[in-house]
Amino acid sequence: MATTTLGEFDLIARYFTRAPRRAVLGVGDDCALLAPLPAGQQLAVSCDMLVEGRHFLSTVAPQRLGHKALAVNLSDLAACGAEPVAFTLALAMPRVDEDFLEGFSRGLFALADAHSVDLVGGDTTAGPLNICITVLGAVPGGQALLRSGARPGDELWVSHPPDGGLGDARLALEVFRGSVALTGDSLEAVRLRMECPTPRVALGVALRGVATSAIDLSDGLVGDLGHVLARSAVGATVNADALPRSAVLAAMPRAMQHECTLAGGDDYELLFSAPPGAESQVIAAAKRAELAVARIGRIDAAPGLRIVDGLGAPLLQRFVAFDHFRTAS
Amino acid sequence: MATTTLGEFDLIARYFTRAPRRAVLGVGDDCALLAPLPAGQQLAVSCDMLVEGRHFLSTVAPQRLGHKALAVNLSDLAACGAEPVAFTLALAMPRVDEDFLEGFSRGLFALADAHSVDLVGGDTTAGPLNICITVLGAVPGGQALLRSGARPGDELWVSHPPDGGLGDARLALEVFRGSVALTGDSLEAVRLRMECPTPRVALGVALRGVATSAIDLSDGLVGDLGHVLARSAVGATVNADALPRSAVLAAMPRAMQHECTLAGGDDYELLFSAPPGAESQVIAAAKRAELAVARIGRIDAAPGLRIVDGLGAPLLQRFVAFDHFRTAS
Repeated sequence: MATTTLGEFDLIARYFTRAPRRAVLGVGDDCALLAPLPAGQQLAVSCDMLVEGRHFLSTVAPQRLGHKALAVNLSDLAACGAEPVAFTLALAMPRVDEDFLEGFSRGLFALADAHSVDLVGGDTTAGPLNICITVLGAVPGGQALLRSGARPGDELWVSHPPDGGLGDARLALEVFRGSVALTGDSLEAVRLRMECPTPRVALGVALRGVATSAIDLSDGLVGDLGHVLARSAVGATVNADALPRSAVLAAMPRAMQHECTLAGGDDYELLFSAPPGAESQVIAAAKRAELAVARIGRIDAAPGLRIVDGLGAPLLQRFVAFDHFRTAS
Repeated sequence: MATTTLGEFDLIARYFTRAPRRAVLGVGDDCALLAPLPAGQQLAVSCDMLVEGRHFLSTVAPQRLGHKALAVNLSDLAACGAEPVAFTLALAMPRVDEDFLEGFSRGLFALADAHSVDLVGGDTTAGPLNICITVLGAVPGGQALLRSGARPGDELWVSHPPDGGLGDARLALEVFRGSVALTGDSLEAVRLRMECPTPRVALGVALRGVATSAIDLSDGLVGDLGHVLARSAVGATVNADALPRSAVLAAMPRAMQHECTLAGGDDYELLFSAPPGAESQVIAAAKRAELAVARIGRIDAAPGLRIVDGLGAPLLQRFVAFDHFRTAS
């Protein structure tokens, strides 16, 4: 590990300062400056803080951590149908570790470049490892996808990779916890889903005007859907057997499949509602984003969340959403 | 201390969710939404992370900490001449402590209200105490005060309260470190300067079109001025005896006065340059902001920073700027 006495301003210059693509003024002054958004666009803002042991394991490669720190924020923009514009990064580290900084910044900027989003400012300081990113995006006025738009009768959909599904990140976590044994390609596949989530930005944009509500799956489907139901003042029925899952997860015991898909967390897929007649538009939007979508349930007028199996029989299990103050990591 | 099992979403609802004054959509969805800025305005963005033991002492009252966390960010907007619009807050805490949250949020929102700035989003999580705020502001295009605009011949100015100066925050820190003895009103006065800095937002706005460069004093005058000199490719001469100081600091030994005013940190006053003919405009701007200003030196074509006494004789002391990876807290 290369631990040096590189100072705060030197490390910002070396690892985090690049010419902005779109910003008027990037890193290095008291503030960054962004040009006004195109006429009619609203600014979308979101913020996530990642703490070691809570949001990532100490074993994660720095490059993957840099990717994930930005990915989970871009995922919030995706859930609103917003396009990324810029972000700030604040980083507390116990010491200046240049190997860490090199890998972290490489993973961060690779994803930033893929979305043409500028790092425009931030802060670095000594302290327990903590990563805080705030993202700014643009969305046409009135077209943002909100949690509050689900209506009774809407169908519930979830995105997934053509060869994957929900719950893989949780399965990987269970491997690290020692409760599941996986090796080789199977382990690497689910580990990649945990450590390198892909924000569904193109899908969010394609769903504008199609989806009635949306949220990104970060704390587990049951908990995240609960936010949609609360803000939309509706209920829902979800078919647990319809939740998409990878071949690796599908080989696990059924209870584990349900636990991982319903309450897994860290999926970063989009969960959204759309009117029953919108099926072809939903599928076309997913195709534009090179993703698959699964229809997993419906929005009900009756409050509450009902989880059933493929035959419509209620599942009795209770699934608890991830709460950063209540759930052990 | 009231430590409860209040969950992540409950505590956000209880302490950090208020109807936004200006934002289209505030806390509670994947993103907040802000209406476009008025025509011709640029978005100013800045971000600061505060870590216990580095940026504040564990003895600070939660209300003052809430104030300071936002104040240091608003101070960055002030240094650019931007007006505050909105901010995000990410907060990592070892446990849910409602006494802390009540005081912290009270101090935070009191300052937010004073500047009509909305808390539009954020994150809370378990972890070592860490506060990260990103502020968004608005400034007319091309009018932002930058570090890069100082020109040889410009005069250097610093803001200060009519009855105070630079270095009080550092003096307070020295009291807590045990190297200086102060009690009663004197201690409370300097402690307030350390724990409750006032962002000079009105002064920053008033200095648009008057100042040629500006920076807020957070890491100490010598270091912060160094950033201006580097980005403006100029040098400067500063008269250490012209630096404003409070009656409490002025009663200290001269070496301590110089250390605190030149390298103290945490002042959050504005250091700015202006052409020699702009004196009356500078004084008028300060008056509008109900502040005093002191002329402390000049910008030189020759690189480097020269610190002299009131008779122009060089001061031989070396002052080191605060670096969060190099300086013990």
